[in-house]
Amino acid sequence: MKNAVGRDIPESVLSNGREVFQGNNYRDGMEYAKNSPKVRAYVKPQESKIVASVKEAVQLCGVKDGMTVSFHHHFREGDYIANMVMKEIADLGIKDITIAASSMGQAHDPIAKLIEDGVVTGLQTSGIRGKMGEAVSNGKLKTPCILRSHGGRVRAIEMGEVKIDVAFVGAPTADEYGNARGTGGKSDCGGLSYSMVDAKHAGKVVVITDTLAPFPNFPPSIQAVDVDYVVVVDEIGDPKKIATRAARLSQDPRDLMMAENCAKIMAATPYFKDGFSFQAGAGGPSLAVNRFLEPLMKERDIKIKWAIGGISGPMVNLFEKGLIETIVDAQSFDTDAVNSLRANPNHYEISTSQYANPMNKGAFVNKLDFVVLAALEIDLGFNVNVVTGSDGILMGAPGGHSDAASGAKCAIIITPLIRGRMPTVCEKVVTVSTPGESIDVLVTDYGTAVNPRRQDLIDALTSAGIKITTIEALKEKAYSIVGAPDELKFHDRIVAIMEARDGTILDVVRQIKPFEFDD
Amino acid sequence: MKNAVGRDIPESVLSNGREVFQGNNYRDGMEYAKNSPKVRAYVKPQESKIVASVKEAVQLCGVKDGMTVSFHHHFREGDYIANMVMKEIADLGIKDITIAASSMGQAHDPIAKLIEDGVVTGLQTSGIRGKMGEAVSNGKLKTPCILRSHGGRVRAIEMGEVKIDVAFVGAPTADEYGNARGTGGKSDCGGLSYSMVDAKHAGKVVVITDTLAPFPNFPPSIQAVDVDYVVVVDEIGDPKKIATRAARLSQDPRDLMMAENCAKIMAATPYFKDGFSFQAGAGGPSLAVNRFLEPLMKERDIKIKWAIGGISGPMVNLFEKGLIETIVDAQSFDTDAVNSLRANPNHYEISTSQYANPMNKGAFVNKLDFVVLAALEIDLGFNVNVVTGSDGILMGAPGGHSDAASGAKCAIIITPLIRGRMPTVCEKVVTVSTPGESIDVLVTDYGTAVNPRRQDLIDALTSAGIKITTIEALKEKAYSIVGAPDELKFHDRIVAIMEARDGTILDVVRQIKPFEFDD
Repeated sequence: MKNAVGRDIPESVLSNGREVFQGNNYRDGMEYAKNSPKVRAYVKPQESKIVASVKEAVQLCGVKDGMTVSFHHHFREGDYIANMVMKEIADLGIKDITIAASSMGQAHDPIAKLIEDGVVTGLQTSGIRGKMGEAVSNGKLKTPCILRSHGGRVRAIEMGEVKIDVAFVGAPTADEYGNARGTGGKSDCGGLSYSMVDAKHAGKVVVITDTLAPFPNFPPSIQAVDVDYVVVVDEIGDPKKIATRAARLSQDPRDLMMAENCAKIMAATPYFKDGFSFQAGAGGPSLAVNRFLEPLMKERDIKIKWAIGGISGPMVNLFEKGLIETIVDAQSFDTDAVNSLRANPNHYEISTSQYANPMNKGAFVNKLDFVVLAALEIDLGFNVNVVTGSDGILMGAPGGHSDAASGAKCAIIITPLIRGRMPTVCEKVVTVSTPGESIDVLVTDYGTAVNPRRQDLIDALTSAGIKITTIEALKEKAYSIVGAPDELKFHDRIVAIMEARDGTILDVVRQIKPFEFDD
Repeated sequence: MKNAVGRDIPESVLSNGREVFQGNNYRDGMEYAKNSPKVRAYVKPQESKIVASVKEAVQLCGVKDGMTVSFHHHFREGDYIANMVMKEIADLGIKDITIAASSMGQAHDPIAKLIEDGVVTGLQTSGIRGKMGEAVSNGKLKTPCILRSHGGRVRAIEMGEVKIDVAFVGAPTADEYGNARGTGGKSDCGGLSYSMVDAKHAGKVVVITDTLAPFPNFPPSIQAVDVDYVVVVDEIGDPKKIATRAARLSQDPRDLMMAENCAKIMAATPYFKDGFSFQAGAGGPSLAVNRFLEPLMKERDIKIKWAIGGISGPMVNLFEKGLIETIVDAQSFDTDAVNSLRANPNHYEISTSQYANPMNKGAFVNKLDFVVLAALEIDLGFNVNVVTGSDGILMGAPGGHSDAASGAKCAIIITPLIRGRMPTVCEKVVTVSTPGESIDVLVTDYGTAVNPRRQDLIDALTSAGIKITTIEALKEKAYSIVGAPDELKFHDRIVAIMEARDGTILDVVRQIKPFEFDD
């Protein structure tokens, strides 16, 4: 069945009342019952919830074949928790586990082997990279991986589509009752936004920390009232690895040129006025926009009322200069953000539901003026792909991309026209991860295109003297330089389902075929 | 059927799987599914949730006959919200409403008439005073009123025994999206602890404020993600009336003598050491204990690690002197507490579930060392009554009494032996609101008794040279002064059910008979 972004969704994935994507606001006003986890009452006062080891916690939680366990990725490529827990689960001979993670990266390469061993047979995540991505793309996972945006993930948890049996929460500090924080320890990671929703909706919650804090460890990101067990280990992660390539600031002149153009485009819209709100996604050019906003804001004597998102150094820099009044933080992308969240009273942690859940009563992204985002590919329908590489292998993260794009009044994609020998602007993206109706402007190193749905923005930019072209022209330019890309070859087997943020099906990812020369 | 405090609970109130009280820890380890409210998705971004009036909010929420609406009592006797909302509901001709309030006081006298009119036919509350208490005691309410402790109330909400259709939250400040706080406005009330649980578990949530704050109003007690509508009115309450008699500090020499003895008793227990935790309940003598703790703590060079509860000036005083490290606040009893919560970073707001829910995974009360509480009556089984007066009329509040008493290692009741011409220490209390197994020590102006269950405390006090007597001797003393009280006369009809904190039935309250001389 064809969906609203023109993808043919096989009937096989439309069981259990699943529907194809029918536009961003299709489920507006829908009523639903929130998930109700089954929890255990601790009526009799106990002094401490500390248990001796991760293994003991796994056993006390009754982890068994077929269960779903969850992890957060606030440590990004420095995370030790998922591997630590999954090793114990594997060593106990438990099989058929579904991992519901906020993201999985190269840090979790060891878990790829557990997929081959049948320990892990299900995977639900907002990001997939490294050997995990290869394993899934090569059809090793028993069931299709479900990919969701950050907002879509917490929506699925709150709506009970993902039922987490045990949430394992790596926490930089925790007290003996489980009040946990993202700061104050030897391995600070900022907030614990992703786990806030898990802790409220999982049957059992285990906090794993390397720094035991005095009770009460306040204010807590994870509340003791939701925590069953606390484990103290030597190290929960390497905070130096929080800032990975995805979050590093670019010095590339091409990136900087695009970033500067992007800032000028923002300044040409009616939303660029005192008190606007802003998110900059991961990726060098997106982050670089911050620096070019500064002179434009000073020139007009305006400030940002609030900035949101994954927060990184360039945003903190504007904040510390007084150009941003409040930061609401769903993920600290680097140590600057971690330090600011700890030290600055106007830098607040929020849950991922507050950040981006499309089906609560109004997330922050719904009030966004601007978001600047990256893309692996963007096609003539302005549909964006941030999950599969040009080789068709899972290697990216929907993250908060479709959430912020859908909510923001002006969603800007910033990307070079060509990467390696592949066109970024193309006929049809390999996988749609953000629907084109959410994207308003495309900024490339070869020119800017505006989504024809936004005649108001075309008018605003034109009257500000900004030269715009069409996405078709940009695609032609790309193809004229590197040629039309060869079509990828896939098996029929579906290895991943890309959900839209509201839970409808946006696209499917099939098992890749190794490249072969045509006869 | 007789329960564990010797009360005969009629079969008529044991429908729907209700059980009689079987001891504090009877439900320890019980598994249950959390309540799952039915909510509406707001997928399409909206700029504001503000509606024109309380009436419009009532209509948009679809309030209709038979629904349950909830209120908090952070404004105590200064609350305007419940009357304001109930007037609109009555004016719209809606009937058969159940009010689920955290407490109802004299401020809500106008609602007594709505009981007679059949607008209000159900009432669930943790406190009932004034004309509401009289109306219920006189059998005017169609269904039995359900009385619960603060912890029991949020337990019932989280377990789905109370299903709130619409929660109306009076908030000193709110932004246009519903992020609401207890401070920052013209009518500050401190925290919004009671409403935190309502907002998470109600189908619809309406925030009513008199001070609209810029978005985002952070950090919020009530999160926008849970709020459907925001209403701005002229005045939500009178913060001067927060400090009522229940929370006023006594200057009565008898109260001060008891308070001093209480402090000495605390100091004679093994829990009186550096880093202990403490709660002082409402009532003059309880609050006065704070001042007598100060010299004892200085003498031993010890500090309180955390204090909790309804917080009032005397506690804030110790806090500001550095004798308390952290305050966790479930209710601000006076303006000192309100101001401290706003200004002091180590004074934290918590939800009532964090404070006292007996069936989450561990509330603060479970870690309490000491609590000092008042009583209207206490009987030979150490059972306490804080809900019915000596005339049998509902006039009090279980509040957090049974919660803190159950959790604390040393729960002390402090009360004069006689009030007016009535003995406080008696054969059998009119209504059991806190079971005797939770009470460890009774301090009166005629001596101190220790619950025989606590031989360890008897030994500790004796070896510290503190003179103790028995509760039987105290009762005899009281009766020898004022005589045995006449037995109250009741009709058969049950007007209120006193739930234990775990949801079992502790006692029932029957309709009073006007006093008549015996033939």
